[in-house]
This record gives sequence, C-alpha cells and structure tokens, in this order.
Amino acid sequence: MHSAVDVIRVKRDGGRLSDEQIDWVVDAYTRGQVADEQMAALAMAVLLRGMTPEETARWTAAMVASGEVLALGSVGRPTVDKHSTGGVGDKITLPLTPLVAACGAAVPQLSGRGLGHTGGTLDKLESIPGWRAQLSVAEVRAQLDEVGAVVCAATEGLAPADRKLYALRDVTGTVESIPLIASSIMSKKIAEGVQSLVLDVKCGSGAFMKDLDQARALATALVEIGSASGLRTSALITDMSVPLGRAVGNALEVAEAVDVLRGGGPPDVVELTLALAREMLDHAGLSDVDPEAALADGRAYDSWRRMIEAQGGDPAAELPRAQHIDVITAPRAGVLTELDAFAVGIAAWRLGAGRARKEDDVDHAAGVLCLAKPGDSVTAGQPLLELHTDRPETVAAAREALRGAYEISDADRRSTPLILDRVAAKSEPS
Amino acid sequence: MHSAVDVIRVKRDGGRLSDEQIDWVVDAYTRGQVADEQMAALAMAVLLRGMTPEETARWTAAMVASGEVLALGSVGRPTVDKHSTGGVGDKITLPLTPLVAACGAAVPQLSGRGLGHTGGTLDKLESIPGWRAQLSVAEVRAQLDEVGAVVCAATEGLAPADRKLYALRDVTGTVESIPLIASSIMSKKIAEGVQSLVLDVKCGSGAFMKDLDQARALATALVEIGSASGLRTSALITDMSVPLGRAVGNALEVAEAVDVLRGGGPPDVVELTLALAREMLDHAGLSDVDPEAALADGRAYDSWRRMIEAQGGDPAAELPRAQHIDVITAPRAGVLTELDAFAVGIAAWRLGAGRARKEDDVDHAAGVLCLAKPGDSVTAGQPLLELHTDRPETVAAAREALRGAYEISDADRRSTPLILDRVAAKSEPS
Repeated sequence: MHSAVDVIRVKRDGGRLSDEQIDWVVDAYTRGQVADEQMAALAMAVLLRGMTPEETARWTAAMVASGEVLALGSVGRPTVDKHSTGGVGDKITLPLTPLVAACGAAVPQLSGRGLGHTGGTLDKLESIPGWRAQLSVAEVRAQLDEVGAVVCAATEGLAPADRKLYALRDVTGTVESIPLIASSIMSKKIAEGVQSLVLDVKCGSGAFMKDLDQARALATALVEIGSASGLRTSALITDMSVPLGRAVGNALEVAEAVDVLRGGGPPDVVELTLALAREMLDHAGLSDVDPEAALADGRAYDSWRRMIEAQGGDPAAELPRAQHIDVITAPRAGVLTELDAFAVGIAAWRLGAGRARKEDDVDHAAGVLCLAKPGDSVTAGQPLLELHTDRPETVAAAREALRGAYEISDADRRSTPLILDRVAAKSEPS
Repeated sequence: MHSAVDVIRVKRDGGRLSDEQIDWVVDAYTRGQVADEQMAALAMAVLLRGMTPEETARWTAAMVASGEVLALGSVGRPTVDKHSTGGVGDKITLPLTPLVAACGAAVPQLSGRGLGHTGGTLDKLESIPGWRAQLSVAEVRAQLDEVGAVVCAATEGLAPADRKLYALRDVTGTVESIPLIASSIMSKKIAEGVQSLVLDVKCGSGAFMKDLDQARALATALVEIGSASGLRTSALITDMSVPLGRAVGNALEVAEAVDVLRGGGPPDVVELTLALAREMLDHAGLSDVDPEAALADGRAYDSWRRMIEAQGGDPAAELPRAQHIDVITAPRAGVLTELDAFAVGIAAWRLGAGRARKEDDVDHAAGVLCLAKPGDSVTAGQPLLELHTDRPETVAAAREALRGAYEISDADRRSTPLILDRVAAKSEPS
C-alpha cells in the first residue's frame, strides 16, 4: 500500500524512488487518486533533489504506460523520428521529414502547437490552404506506408500522465527540471513506438537551455531514457543564439522550407537539415544514402508535395501574406555582429505569429524576416529586418522587443559553429 | 502585480521572498486565488530552501492578518500564555494555567484537540462532566477578568491562512519545516493578542523534535518570531524521551493534574509546572510571587475549581474510569532504566485515548498509568504499567506497541535533566 506523502518524503529527503513507487504515483495521479497539490510538492522535490537516470527512465515508462502506445515502428521501412526542444525560426521538421522519407526511412512526426516565443510545427503547416493536422492512427499508418512522411497532431491518448503533469508544472514553477523535461519529451516519443530518435537540443538565448552545460545535461538525460527503453537515440546540441534561417513566423517559415526542399534556402537551415538527416539515416541503417543529393535532384521536394497532399493541403497554393510590412534599417555601415534569437522570437510573437494562451489563434502571415544575418556586411540605411503583420498596432511593441537585439560594428564577427556537440548512447542498442 | 509562479521561483532558486511577496501569497492563498498546488510547491521549496528569520516573521504576520486578532492582552492584569509543542503525558497546561492565574497574571489558553500519539488539552478537560470547550470571545474576556484563567477552543476566525496551510502541509509531505512549524504555532498565539508567551519545546522520542539541535532551532525560530512581533517570548527545551508524570490518557491526566494542584503529584510534573510558571510570571512582571507557595496553600487549586466551574464543569465530579485494566509486570528485579515516551503514547492511543482521524471520538477513560518511572527499583512481578480501556480487544495492540519500550537492568540509570535548555530573545522587548 503506497501513500503519496510517503513517496513525497522519500524524494524530499534526497532518497531514490523505487520502481513500484514511481509506477504507483504516476498511475494514481493520472487517475486522480493522488491530488494536484501532492504531485506539485513531489515535482518541486524532484526539481530540487533530482532523479537518477534509472528513476527518470522508470518515470518516463510509467507516463508511457498511462496511455496508448501506437507501435508506428511496425511499417515496412525503418522508422525514425526527430524532436527539437524548440527555437526561433526552427522550421527544420518541414524540410527534414520529407527528405528523410525520400531517402528510404519512415518518419512519423507527432507534433504540437506553439506557446510563447517559439512557434509550433502544426501552426506553420496550417499556413498551407487545406492542410489538416488531425489524423486518425489508421491514417497515420497508411500515410507512413505510402508516403513515408507524416507531420500531424499527437493523439490525446498518448501519455495522458504527461499532459496532466505538464499543465501542473506550468503553474507551480516546476518546469525547469531536467529529469521532468526529459521524461515529458521522451514519454510522447516512446509512445509513438518508433525504432529510433534524433534529438535537436537547442542552446542559447532563443532556447529553453541558455548554456551548453545545461543543454548537455538535457541531451544526456534524453539519450539515456531512449537507450533504457530500447530506442536508438542520439542528440545534436545546436546553436540558438541567433534565429535559424531568415524567416520567423508561420507562412514565412513554410516558404523558406520550400526553398530548402528545392535545393536553395539559407545555408544554416540546409546545414542543420542535412546533419539531422544523416543522424536519422544512420539510425535507420541507411547511412549510404546521400541526403544532399535528394535535396538537389528534386526527390525531397517531391516527397514534400506528396506529404502535404496526403493531408489535404495544396503545395502549389499561395501562402498568406501580411498586409503590413514595417522595415528596420541599419543605423550605420559595418558588420552585423549580433542578432538575438530571443528578441526576434518575442517580436514575431507580438506581431501575431504566436499565442499567449492555448486558446488563442495565430496569424499565419505574421512574423519577422531577417534580411541580414550575423557576419553580413551592411550599409547605412540597408533593410535589416522586415516586420510582417496584419495588425499595424503591434509594430511598436515588436520594435520595442528588438531594441538592442542587433549590433553593427567595425570588427569582423567571430563565427560560431551551428552544431555545438553530439551526444550518443554509451553503448548503442543493436 | 504578483504571480504565484514568480514567488515560487524565487524560493525555489534559493532567494529571499520580499515582504510584499509574502503578504500577497498568504492573502491570495487564503482567498483561494493561489491554488493548493501552487502553495504546495512553495511549501516544498520553503522546506528545502529555508526562510530567514525576517521572512518567517513576515510570513507569520501575514497569517495573523488573514483573520481576526483578539486583543486578549487588554484585560486588567498582565497576560501571558504558554504553548507546548506536544508530548506524551503532557498535562502541564492543566495545573499551570490556574496556578499562574492564582499568582496574579491572566492566562488565556486557546487550545486544540489531539491527533496521533499526543493528547489534546481540550480532550483532557472534556473528561470533566459538564465542562465545555467552546466559548465566545466575550465569554473568554469575562472569564479572564473574573478568574484569570481560561482554557478553551481556538475560534475559527484566528489565522485562517494557518488552518488552510496546515491541512495542505499534512497531505503534501511539507510538515517538517522549522519556519513553517514556527509560523504556524506563533500565528495563532499572536492572534490571541497576549503580551507575553512561554514555549515548552519538547525534545525526544515522544516529541516531534527528536534531537536537541532540532529543538533548539525550533525554539530559536519561535522566540525570534515572538520578539519580532513585540511579544515577550522565551522557550524551555524539555525532555520528552520518557512520559511526563505517570498518567497518559485524558481522565487519568486530569486526576494527576488535580494531585499537583493539591500540592502532590509526580515530581517531574511539579518541577516543569513550577519552571514554566516562573518563566511566565517573570514575563508578567510578577517575579516576586512564589508559585510553589500557591500550590502548597491551596490558592492554585481554588483557581482551578473556579476555572472549571466557569465553563460548566463540576470539579468535584467523579472522572470516567475504564472498565478494563490490564497490568504489565516486571519480568525481573532491577532498576527500570528505560520507558519510551513514543511507545507509551502509541499504546494509550491504541487503547482509545487518542484519535486517528479528526472526526473520531476519544475514550476519556482510556490510557496508560506508569506505575514505575526510570530510576525506580522494581522487584520481579511488580506491576509496571496499567493499560486502561473500555475495549479489551485493543489490549493486544497496546502490548505490542510497548514491546521493547522498557528496560530493567542491574546498573543504576544515569539521570537526565528534565529541562535541557532555555532560549530567550537576544534583547528582550521592554
């Protein structure tokens, strides 16, 4: 017989929760037998006392067991998924999913919507007329078989314990716990039932993890959970101090993704897409396939078209455009040495690209276009940033967010790598 | 504009809450605007991160401000109260209150009921036929004027924040925090509005604080809060490894208290009653009055009779007696060197003297009589403990609780002092 207070006390006093205690408390919380205030106290104790990798893996497994498991791994091809911890301008899922599918793997991307200063993949794709995010499990499986690529909304039945706990952590100051963040991410991915997973852990001002040590700790926790549950897992830690690409905002990012799929696009978006594709193809046993060729010869774009069409979208349709574009110009000549990701994310959000509350709608046309990126030389008066919105009254707030977010100097900018580190399992499962 | 998450984060990250944050969060919690799960997370953060004396004093003041303040200090005589953190056989309030009143101070004892292995003062006095615990504020004040001594139930309106928080801490594993324990005790005492307060902080197996360091920390926190709110406060730290006196159980303790008031009673009960009386009289400016004389010459007993009669009780009435008495005898001759307070408390509780849930009734006749105390020489077969109950089926469980709780050896017992330490304010308010 377990009691919530006994479980809380163990963690509060710095002890290790037993498998049985973890299974019990996650299940009882999901069923409402452990109260919100009890789970809140436990979450705070976990945040301040930590959990071992074994506890974290068990906690994740208990959250997976709280709902349905999709077994999406059982299609004809090797399955592999990617998850990003979220960043400004991070549209990588859009070119990456059809690209990896074009290379022979099956990629089920069960995604979410955005909240706050980073956008959500579903919000972005909903810029495309006709495209729908909601698929049944049978539809997901059929599309995986036929197209190899699916991006859709996660079903309500996946890891309900996580959904409940996430909402609780949000209002109780218990979000910032690496074991809880890692188990939340991994429970949903494990419940998909794929065979392998690549994580893109963002690091920098525009990301949840502000420094490399934190990002490494999270990447390690994620990879450990994946390995413990028999998933081939690795993580790239990538820079998020500067927006990724030039486009920040839903339709703007779709357009940029299409550029990449057509063999163009900003170099950083291409670089990260290819790096993640290679990780995924490695896990899928397809390391001899060259994703760069698939971008160049149109196979990736063809895969994109089929993926969008399968979900009712028209890949040829015009994307929404903002009625109002405000331009910020360079105050002087020099080299752009700074463009803060967080500030650009906040500006895009204020222009209407993101939502403040779950219930809000997003403005698909709104966002920021970065016409210059750090390292670029600019002349005085040259356009630096375009603010796109249908609500001109938001421009002042967006400009305010961008005050001090960019810097032009005489010195050259020291270039920083996009991919900061890679974390792999200690012994990769075979 | 405050937010609960911001306040939680400050404490979670080891920071210090501002006065405004404390006032806001205690008030908003009382009014239901901060949710239970948010206060639970904050309570856990406070437990693990601590609070400074200044934060604790402010937290206490905010809980006092959540309800009514009685201003019981405004009667014709100096007012002084005593609070014990609770122990086994701790009936000291019963002789102490009328004794100190007999010496010239006014003593309002707003008390609670027992839960678990330590008894409550109201439960004890309700053994007396006709006595009622519930008084209006006007009745309390009138009785203070006329008799100088009142023991009654705390009104619902005192520190409602504390009542709500205490219930929450009980189910969230956040009881064991010295700042929270201290502010809970002091908020109710400060809300009474007395001029001075003496604390009896129990230390040992039968008490909440098991070791002297913990007890000193709690005593210090209590005295600091009292001083910060202008209350003359001091604390005695007293031994609770052995039951206090011989009687443990409601009516049994009342009978023992009457023995003390009549000039007899067990030496430890007399010693502690006099020590606390002297502390209280000191605070009341009555240090020249000799409480020992008031016990010896019948003034204290007279004060007791008037106090009981004022609340409808018959001081001459027969007290309830148990229908069944089971006797535990000494297995060998020697010196009793050990009699564990916690075990005796649990035994009395199982016999019916205490309650497991708030809603339970207590059996006023049930309890344990300790016929020998540590240091006493015993012969083989001599009665050591009497188990009193109306439910003989509880005896087996009580005997089980007492297994290993006493020890008879050939060596003399090293005697330990009853009063372990005294904690006074650094600079006593004048």
